[in-house]
Amino acid sequence: MQGEVLARLAAVNVGLPAFADAIASQGAPVVDVEWRPPARGDRDTVRALELLWGVHGSAVASANEEVVRRIEASQPRAVKVAPARDMLPILSSGRVLLHSGTTIAWERVCDPQQRALAAACVFEGWASSPAEARSLLETGDVALAPGNEHGHVGPMTGVCSPSMPVWVVLDETSGARAYSTFNEGPGRTLWFGVGDEESIERLRFFRDELGPLMARLLDREGPIDIFSLTAQGLQMGDELHMRSQATGNLLVRNLAPGFAALGGERSARFLTGNHHFFLTLTMAAAKCASLAGAGVRGSSVVNLITRNGTDMALQVAGLPGRWFSAPAAPVQDALLREGYTETDAALDIGDSAVIECIGLGGMAVAAAPAVAAFFGGGAADAIARTELMGQITVGRSHRFTIPALDFAGTPIGIDARLAAELDITPQITTGVLHASTGAGQIGAGVAHQPVEPFRAAVLALAEDLDE
Amino acid sequence: MQGEVLARLAAVNVGLPAFADAIASQGAPVVDVEWRPPARGDRDTVRALELLWGVHGSAVASANEEVVRRIEASQPRAVKVAPARDMLPILSSGRVLLHSGTTIAWERVCDPQQRALAAACVFEGWASSPAEARSLLETGDVALAPGNEHGHVGPMTGVCSPSMPVWVVLDETSGARAYSTFNEGPGRTLWFGVGDEESIERLRFFRDELGPLMARLLDREGPIDIFSLTAQGLQMGDELHMRSQATGNLLVRNLAPGFAALGGERSARFLTGNHHFFLTLTMAAAKCASLAGAGVRGSSVVNLITRNGTDMALQVAGLPGRWFSAPAAPVQDALLREGYTETDAALDIGDSAVIECIGLGGMAVAAAPAVAAFFGGGAADAIARTELMGQITVGRSHRFTIPALDFAGTPIGIDARLAAELDITPQITTGVLHASTGAGQIGAGVAHQPVEPFRAAVLALAEDLDE
Repeated sequence: MQGEVLARLAAVNVGLPAFADAIASQGAPVVDVEWRPPARGDRDTVRALELLWGVHGSAVASANEEVVRRIEASQPRAVKVAPARDMLPILSSGRVLLHSGTTIAWERVCDPQQRALAAACVFEGWASSPAEARSLLETGDVALAPGNEHGHVGPMTGVCSPSMPVWVVLDETSGARAYSTFNEGPGRTLWFGVGDEESIERLRFFRDELGPLMARLLDREGPIDIFSLTAQGLQMGDELHMRSQATGNLLVRNLAPGFAALGGERSARFLTGNHHFFLTLTMAAAKCASLAGAGVRGSSVVNLITRNGTDMALQVAGLPGRWFSAPAAPVQDALLREGYTETDAALDIGDSAVIECIGLGGMAVAAAPAVAAFFGGGAADAIARTELMGQITVGRSHRFTIPALDFAGTPIGIDARLAAELDITPQITTGVLHASTGAGQIGAGVAHQPVEPFRAAVLALAEDLDE
Repeated sequence: MQGEVLARLAAVNVGLPAFADAIASQGAPVVDVEWRPPARGDRDTVRALELLWGVHGSAVASANEEVVRRIEASQPRAVKVAPARDMLPILSSGRVLLHSGTTIAWERVCDPQQRALAAACVFEGWASSPAEARSLLETGDVALAPGNEHGHVGPMTGVCSPSMPVWVVLDETSGARAYSTFNEGPGRTLWFGVGDEESIERLRFFRDELGPLMARLLDREGPIDIFSLTAQGLQMGDELHMRSQATGNLLVRNLAPGFAALGGERSARFLTGNHHFFLTLTMAAAKCASLAGAGVRGSSVVNLITRNGTDMALQVAGLPGRWFSAPAAPVQDALLREGYTETDAALDIGDSAVIECIGLGGMAVAAAPAVAAFFGGGAADAIARTELMGQITVGRSHRFTIPALDFAGTPIGIDARLAAELDITPQITTGVLHASTGAGQIGAGVAHQPVEPFRAAVLALAEDLDE
């Protein structure tokens, strides 16, 4: 793995002669490359990079290798389904709602997320209308907390309230645990920021029917080995962020005998009609793997990325718990529904970018030409997107492989150094919400993350290692 | 489509100067190509080809276009499940068994097919042991008939007896109907030529449980639009002959709500545990499409191929009902289970080659790198295999598309002229049975069909058009 890192370094040496010498003295080939200013010539970043590739280079490389090893060794399994209040202490008493992204004040919360939070208050019976809910949220009578700080990950608006059933996902190897709500599917839903009566009714169905049944199904059929299914899904055209249809069908295949035994036709129809149902399982598993990788000093691997439609933030495994943030980006390369334009689009949102941190989603587009086609590209474009991500990652996954690349692994372990230096940031395959009307999803595209937090992480990491 | 045919012709003109002139006079480009003797220089075949590309060329082209149009227009749906005796007149009285391939005398039946036929006699209660069954079969007290002549297609040994439930597949567009048994899955089964008590017990389960339940499921959930599912499965890594896992999961997704409503845990467990369950649906649908294409005078499209481990035979759409046959081929490029060698392998067997006649299976390997990997090849090999088949087909499917080829259609409409002339025959992705011990499946590979029947079809077609 170190060799691979060194090989990549060749591409950046032109701007860092001191570092190139250091590499050459270690026997690695140094090749001439098309010149581009590292880190766009940002002086502080370049200085930090010199330290992180130079004097601290082998320490960082070892740390990164260990982080990727831990991520790859994780085996997150959905072991249980239970009401969020029973599993997440922060939701066990009082009026608290979890949301995607980092800590944010109500007035900065983007419109779709505000709508989802208000709807959750109505669902919980704290308010009788969205308007009443909004005043509770404004005054702080209902408190907000970022799910990621409590082991919860939610897609898009990512709201979790005490009565919602959650997947309980456990990685026995590391002991990491994570939680996520059921995916609500397409249409009028909270995750898409609609939040009307229909979307609240779906939550009641989750609470009263689907949740309890899924709990019994898991008890009966055993835990769901999530990464075993996602690895198979990659062989079936899913990249596991924008598309997880085939993987969802694998889950249905596993659960069908249980449905035959326990009944639950309405739940079965919902589950089989929701192409995104698997998404939150992938997310919770990725969060487990991310936690498993956190806390290896010196690691520049980005093990967490999250967005809330206002801010985007990331963490590196070497500095666990410390956020590096920037304003959320617009979703680019987006295909919008007829009648909508870029000005209707909310900014990038959701905890789902943790998927890219463990080698799926935007890292694995080569596995899903249908996703690339969505952005107007062909099979070659799909492969190019994955190869581009390979330029900023530490290695290749052993368990997540891509048929079109002769079963090469997906790029895994986003290296903040490479992202900062090459000015190439992770691409997140994601949906687009309406920015203001509660119209829900209006499209999908690729969110290219802002580079500033990667630079900030590099600076902080260099500082930490110099202490 | 005619333009496409003409373009292909350029590759064969070197050996057929008179024909090259004819094409050139029609304004088509004639390019120099690497020389290879057409039809390996077989004089009669070359003469017939001259007629079929020359004076009859446009008639054949129009006929082929019409056949492919009909195949592509077919929409076979599984509308019903019922005991074979209720659907197939030949099985309604007396002691008759259907088998794969063409008409054959008992003593020429290959070992695995003999075992399956004997087991079917025991299953029907006509004999109390396989030994007793064999004497009934030897004496003709149990009669044999080729399924293909009665609208039935069966994989591998392809045995169908009166009490077995069958899929009833109907193409409303053409009115064509076809039947196939349920796939028995891996292990000790009749289709693999085992035929022991365990394999007979599975047939009882089909007759008593799975069959009646599947009939109720279809009534409840509506017909299965088979080609809609196979088209989706192609996007999910299936080529639909050797691999139909993803497509099978799509079926499970469709049926899961019905299972929740009707129960049937054992059936659900069998269905979800059998990766080949969809195979016989694809086969029956392909047979429907094949029948829809049959009977367009002058067409050189091979709309039916079948093998029984002894003989292989084909039909062309221009001469419906007429078989052109040769000894069955060995399965090549085969991966055999440990402990087995080529000498253990039975010859190519099964009605399943009808799948290749409608643009799936060996035609669609590019969609399934996992299948190519099975033969030791990579993604490029998978694509090359499909492109090779494109050299002997009339056109490209509109509904069956391949993500890795930027959603180009699969090659469809095997042209007997091109196969005979280029000496390239259809590749069938298929299993390998043990030749003599009843060990069942010992591997899988590609069966390259013998060229003689393609030549014979070309001769017969030229004769027919000259009448």
